[in-house]
This record gives sequence, C-alpha cells and structure tokens, in this order.
Amino acid sequence: MLFKFDLMTPEQGIIDITKEVCQSIKESGVSEGICVIFCPHTTAAITINENADPDVRSDFVFGMNKAFPDDNEFRHSEGNSDAHLKSSSIGASETLIISRGAPLLGRWQGVYFCEFDGPRTRQFFVKVIRS
Amino acid sequence: MLFKFDLMTPEQGIIDITKEVCQSIKESGVSEGICVIFCPHTTAAITINENADPDVRSDFVFGMNKAFPDDNEFRHSEGNSDAHLKSSSIGASETLIISRGAPLLGRWQGVYFCEFDGPRTRQFFVKVIRS
Amino acid sequence: MLFKFDLMTPEQGIIDITKEVCQSIKESGVSEGICVIFCPHTTAAITINENADPDVRSDFVFGMNKAFPDDNEFRHSEGNSDAHLKSSSIGASETLIISRGAPLLGRWQGVYFCEFDGPRTRQFFVKVIRS
Repeated sequence: MLFKFDLMTPEQGIIDITKEVCQSIKESGVSEGICVIFCPHTTAAITINENADPDVRSDFVFGMNKAFPDDNEFRHSEGNSDAHLKSSSIGASETLIISRGAPLLGRWQGVYFCEFDGPRTRQFFVKVIRS
Repeated sequence: MLFKFDLMTPEQGIIDITKEVCQSIKESGVSEGICVIFCPHTTAAITINENADPDVRSDFVFGMNKAFPDDNEFRHSEGNSDAHLKSSSIGASETLIISRGAPLLGRWQGVYFCEFDGPRTRQFFVKVIRS
Repeated sequence: MLFKFDLMTPEQGIIDITKEVCQSIKESGVSEGICVIFCPHTTAAITINENADPDVRSDFVFGMNKAFPDDNEFRHSEGNSDAHLKSSSIGASETLIISRGAPLLGRWQGVYFCEFDGPRTRQFFVKVIRS
C-alpha cells in the first residue's frame, strides 16, 4: 500500500496534493489507520495549510523567504541553502489519521507539496497503514 | 482507538496536553506502538517542548512572532498569514513512540497544543497504533 | 522493535544518523512499513537534509541562528530559549517509509540529529512498524 506520484513544480510555491492522498487511501481499501506523505527531496517539503484563499499560498512563500532569506555568508556552492533550511523547517513528511476511509482533515485543511528551489520534476510517496 | 478532545485557547500560547495523550494511550490498552496527535486547524499546531519553566512557553510565543512577524505585504484578507506560517513551521502533528503503555518522552518533554490566532474553541485528535 | 542510540554532540551542529536508522530496520527484519526516529530532548531535533556537501550542514546552523536568534527579551533563566524554538521548528521526530527492508530516502537525503545547545551526551530512538 505504497503509492508514488510525480509532479512539475514552479520556481517557488505550494501545490495541493489532497486529491492524490484521498485517492491513495481509497485505493488501499483501508478505513481506519494512518498515512505518511513523504517528500524524497532536500529543497522541498510537505505541509498542511489552508485550502481556501490562494493568497495564503503566496503569503507562505513570501513569509518563508523573510524567515529564511538567502545570505552572502552561506557557503554551499549550489547557492540554495535557504531552500534546504525551509525544507527542514517545514519537514519532509506529514502523518495523517485515516477515519472512515478518508484523511481526518479539518474543514479548511489541505495537503501541500512545497517547492523551494524549482522548477523541477518532483515526486512524493503516500504510505497507508491499517490499524 | 481514536480519541478527540476540545479545548479553549488564549490569543496566543501553548497549552500542555500531555495528560490527554497519556490518558488516550492508557484507555487504548496498547503497551507497544506509536501514537499520532493531530491538529485539524490551519492557524494552530502540535509541538513537544519543555514542561518545567513556564518562561519557555512565553519565550516560544515571542520568538515565533520574531521569526514570522505580521507584514504589510501579506495579501490574505483575514490578516492572519503569520499564524498560517507558524502553523506550517511547527507542524499539524507529532508522532510519539509508545513503550510499556506510556509515551516515550524525555524527562523535560511535554506535548503542547500551539494557538497562533485565538482565542478559539479548538480540537485535537489522538490516534493509537499497536505494533 | 525499539532501538536506542547514544551520541556525543558538538556545541551546535547536525550529525548523520542514517547508518543507525538503516541498521535498526535491518535488525528488525521488517521489509515493508514505517519507522519513527524520536529525539527525547527539548533543545535538539531530528531532520532530513542533504548528505553530500558538508557546507549545507554549517549553513543550516548559521541560518537557524538567523531565524531564531538569542534575544535580550527572553526570560527563561537557562538562557537557551533560542534552542527550544529551533527544536520545535525542526521537530522532535521524523517518520520514514520502509520499502524492501530499507528507508525510502531520496538520493541526496540523510537523517540527522540536530544539536542546538551542546556539547552534551544525547540519545535517540528508532521504532520500526511492520505494515
């Protein structure tokens, strides 16, 4: 019960992957359990945030750049240390509770893939565990 | 083995929910496994931090406001984009290891519900998994 | 299937623990499942980040100090509130997917123990769950 997805990302931004998560749970046939959404990249991340106003998504990018700005003192030769920091701050995975065959999400919650150093072709995994 | 709790929150602050987590594990009868504590809100979060000095809790609020301040350039009409950023930085869930019928926590660790845009009536879930 | 490890840490820095995680999964005999790596300390954390260029690791320390600097207004008497904030921002645990007897990690990903207030003798736990 492991599912893999590919996606194309913008330079920076967060992409709604709630549908893919719901679909994985449905295909697994699991009605009660947990699921882990995992990002195998070091300049991207998985988060849960508001699914309604698109301004929340652009404010997310803006605020993360303020908290973890690029800096002349960074030494990493690829020049994307700010993206590595954002990735660790947001985290490579999210764990959701599954109840009645669906992710237990709040009314305003969606699951998002966060791109901090794109555009790139990226992947994410959904692992479903029955309990 | 899914438990739901309600709580009233202050404007900003972190509330100790360790007792509710321990109680859920005890009621589940699970002695070895994991548990997921999940927050279904997009301007709140779950974290683990020090359970001793209350100054750590007020410093937490102060430091999060410094790292993710409100900003005139935010466009989200509700005016709480800083709270959405704090929620994603801290994260909507924590996963604990269960050993001998209790959460495997360090001596100084407690589990906290973080409110970034209160006061509100909030909820959180505890899912217990046997292994 | 719970494993415990000790390590000695520097004043600040991130230490590669990928080998210990892989070894735990191998010893458990689990080929498909998840594993939780948990840090029982409130001024340390677990993260996933780049395993190639060591400059990413020093830039990580530098960037976390910029985002969560020490501040004269902090009240906590131990004087390490910045370390508590970093611990909550990065998080006390990581959850990995296990596939074919190994952690499902991207090519450039390693698992790291983050020290924000060392040097100290620290511990971490690896819990393996079959699915």
